[in-house]
Amino acid sequence: MNKIEHIGIAVKNMDISCSLYEQLLGAACYKKELVASEGVNTAFFKTGQNKIELLSATVADSPIAKFLERKGEGIHHIAFDVEDIVVEMDRLKAAGFVLLNEQPKRGADNKLVCFVHPKGTNGVLVELCQEIKA
Amino acid sequence: MNKIEHIGIAVKNMDISCSLYEQLLGAACYKKELVASEGVNTAFFKTGQNKIELLSATVADSPIAKFLERKGEGIHHIAFDVEDIVVEMDRLKAAGFVLLNEQPKRGADNKLVCFVHPKGTNGVLVELCQEIKA
Repeated sequence: MNKIEHIGIAVKNMDISCSLYEQLLGAACYKKELVASEGVNTAFFKTGQNKIELLSATVADSPIAKFLERKGEGIHHIAFDVEDIVVEMDRLKAAGFVLLNEQPKRGADNKLVCFVHPKGTNGVLVELCQEIKA
Repeated sequence: MNKIEHIGIAVKNMDISCSLYEQLLGAACYKKELVASEGVNTAFFKTGQNKIELLSATVADSPIAKFLERKGEGIHHIAFDVEDIVVEMDRLKAAGFVLLNEQPKRGADNKLVCFVHPKGTNGVLVELCQEIKA
């Protein structure tokens, strides 16, 4: 794991939360992206080498809609930047961690991603992400 | 805000969770520290320029004990590294954020810290931290 790539935060109202995080972080949102396959809208902010990702639901059965219903607004996941996602997935599987997707999938912000089951990580939803190189 | 300094994760059993996070992050715990004033034990791991901090309760009325009771294990807070904590506290107060301590206080890992009320930040407990210089 190279570094924390981003922290994902589930919010109800993207516009209000975007303004709020611009004020909190003292940094403008640099990218908004719809990930239709997951039913989420995303907004990204830079803080040094790390990012904050706001997530809101676009459909009722989006994982974010379910999270908001169950837990309310708040931190949804930590994403770690990895060099080679397949190597890292294999390492974690061998160590007994349970992966939520068996193959890397396309995430927001030009990444291949894989999630680790929070039951094996003290309730923390961990995302691995690898930059997709051109 | 310079970068994410660390992510704080509330855990029930520090020993078990320490081993687990060593495996997850592929990095050894580099520091354990008791913060008696807060009733918490902490353990730190490096991941690039960022850190993961595990937190367990040492007394029944510790904020971590209360968090575990209310929400279970999981991400407790995001800490941002700041250059001058007083300047940053003033900036956030002026922007309408509510601070949980009016003066910086001594935290783990040689830091001055201040928490921002999660009601004003979409349920996210935000910590500001400034390195204490020798």
